[in-house]
Amino acid sequence: MDVSELGEFGLIDRLTAALGAPSDERLIVGPGDDAAVWRAGDAYVIGTTDTMVAGVHFLPDRVAWRDAGWKALASNVSDIAAMGGVPSFALVTLCVPPETRVGALDELYAGLRECAEAYGVAVAGGDVVSSPVLTITVALAGEARRGADGAPRLLRRSAARAGDAIAVTGPLGGSGAGLRALVEGRAEGDARAALVRRHMRPLPRVDAGRAAVEAGVRCGIDISDGLVQDAGHICEASGVGAEIAIDSVPLDTSLVVAYADDARTIAATAGEDYELLLVAPDAVIADASARLGAPLAVIGRIVEGPPRVRVLDAAGNEVTLERAGFDHLKRA
Amino acid sequence: MDVSELGEFGLIDRLTAALGAPSDERLIVGPGDDAAVWRAGDAYVIGTTDTMVAGVHFLPDRVAWRDAGWKALASNVSDIAAMGGVPSFALVTLCVPPETRVGALDELYAGLRECAEAYGVAVAGGDVVSSPVLTITVALAGEARRGADGAPRLLRRSAARAGDAIAVTGPLGGSGAGLRALVEGRAEGDARAALVRRHMRPLPRVDAGRAAVEAGVRCGIDISDGLVQDAGHICEASGVGAEIAIDSVPLDTSLVVAYADDARTIAATAGEDYELLLVAPDAVIADASARLGAPLAVIGRIVEGPPRVRVLDAAGNEVTLERAGFDHLKRA
Repeated sequence: MDVSELGEFGLIDRLTAALGAPSDERLIVGPGDDAAVWRAGDAYVIGTTDTMVAGVHFLPDRVAWRDAGWKALASNVSDIAAMGGVPSFALVTLCVPPETRVGALDELYAGLRECAEAYGVAVAGGDVVSSPVLTITVALAGEARRGADGAPRLLRRSAARAGDAIAVTGPLGGSGAGLRALVEGRAEGDARAALVRRHMRPLPRVDAGRAAVEAGVRCGIDISDGLVQDAGHICEASGVGAEIAIDSVPLDTSLVVAYADDARTIAATAGEDYELLLVAPDAVIADASARLGAPLAVIGRIVEGPPRVRVLDAAGNEVTLERAGFDHLKRA
Repeated sequence: MDVSELGEFGLIDRLTAALGAPSDERLIVGPGDDAAVWRAGDAYVIGTTDTMVAGVHFLPDRVAWRDAGWKALASNVSDIAAMGGVPSFALVTLCVPPETRVGALDELYAGLRECAEAYGVAVAGGDVVSSPVLTITVALAGEARRGADGAPRLLRRSAARAGDAIAVTGPLGGSGAGLRALVEGRAEGDARAALVRRHMRPLPRVDAGRAAVEAGVRCGIDISDGLVQDAGHICEASGVGAEIAIDSVPLDTSLVVAYADDARTIAATAGEDYELLLVAPDAVIADASARLGAPLAVIGRIVEGPPRVRVLDAAGNEVTLERAGFDHLKRA
């Protein structure tokens, strides 16, 4: 059997099982959430890692190296935001073919620095090695916010309860549409350029994660795989179902301009918007919104039942969407 | 200009400069040591990352996948040991071609688990992505030991002083000889099999790092690039010179059996033995040895002068060695 038969999630499950359940009592959150959390002294460290392979996760001939550097760190910042935490220190690993232009790497690291400065992250170290394929891997540590009792306040995938509202922190689909514009080679025009920027320069929602945990939200995830798929991760971890009203999903403005016909499908299924999906009782969501000083769009509700996401139209009928996230490893 | 003109260390210097000096006051040790150290609450977190690219850092057709998994974690454990710390939580990133046999990955992760269990490390998370080249990257967090005053006790590259003894925690050259046996396709026989095992199953010296910091050693590095090169890193960071008596360097027994003629050169220049090089006044080294319950071999001395390592023979004459570490990125 080869990897393509298992796919990304099948392989992750298999390898996680091969490693055995971690038994360290300091580990608060292990594999299976947006990031890991462990206790160190009186602090709660959040750790995550995310990697970008040239030609797989970004197209070096179609995007700016500087933007790739931004995104390599931003996707990690989003994982910390999705736990409600504060990012702090990064380790950066560069696998690089010897024939790579140094000027490209200067740009890559300049973009990484811009993102680090924007989010208060310091690069504390890393590794540089030779490889046939350019790959940039970031490991990012942060800290969990703590309550007055010293306990960590976290956004977990496993904390959804039937009756909870499902809210999203901003418009969706912009990143997925930007990727489409890049792949189609049609990134010109104001709307498409904005979409490409949304794809390559995501703005992780550390602010919204903070407002959420302070308001008492205890369940959340970042939208990296796509809304339906990420809502599904919450359903699986919490043992609940979810209903999403497709007409309530806020759409990226440029997405509507450039891809009007497919806008809803892209917003519901494409990934890498890096907004947060928050799950909590309505009053708690309202409090989080007030603390954030910006509206949170309620797009659905957690229901009892099997861990399944149902997408509903205005009449309450289930909608079938063509594509639910993207699996680079799975054979089509 | 391309990367091969800069080489590994030139590129690291350039990229580190591009990121700017980290300004976070919680950062105790930034880029340029074996690992980074930062404060989190009342704890001192040590973070490091190390990566292995198939075909560059290990030869998948000549070594066991299980051994590669061990080594991927062990090299990181050694970085924590080289700071005097205790390893705790790992994040594992696997870049994998879709056509990879799942059975190979089962073995890779079984070896990683063996190393994790041997060193008390829990795998807390990671990432799995598609890539044309199999690459395994580990980010490892640990904690610094603390003195009675709560301050961290660390082994720094920058803490060598003229007059200090240079000691090594065990025999050298075994790993480099094992690599040579693999490359030559001559890994048969007891001695060569032992060397290959030394190359693929290194035993990081967390125990020696602990004894060292408890005895008051404040300067150290792990021997990953090769004795002369790693001693050079200490000289550069400390602004001192070093003299190493080549006849004092302890040699791996199997190395002497298999490669008698080149044994000293291999021991002085080949990397990945993952013993520690410790630098301190003689009495402190003696105390560390007593605490460890094993001899530490004094092989040289720190001297005033430019940051240069002189290797001396029994008559005190300088020896020129052919090879001083290995740079995968630099054009030969």
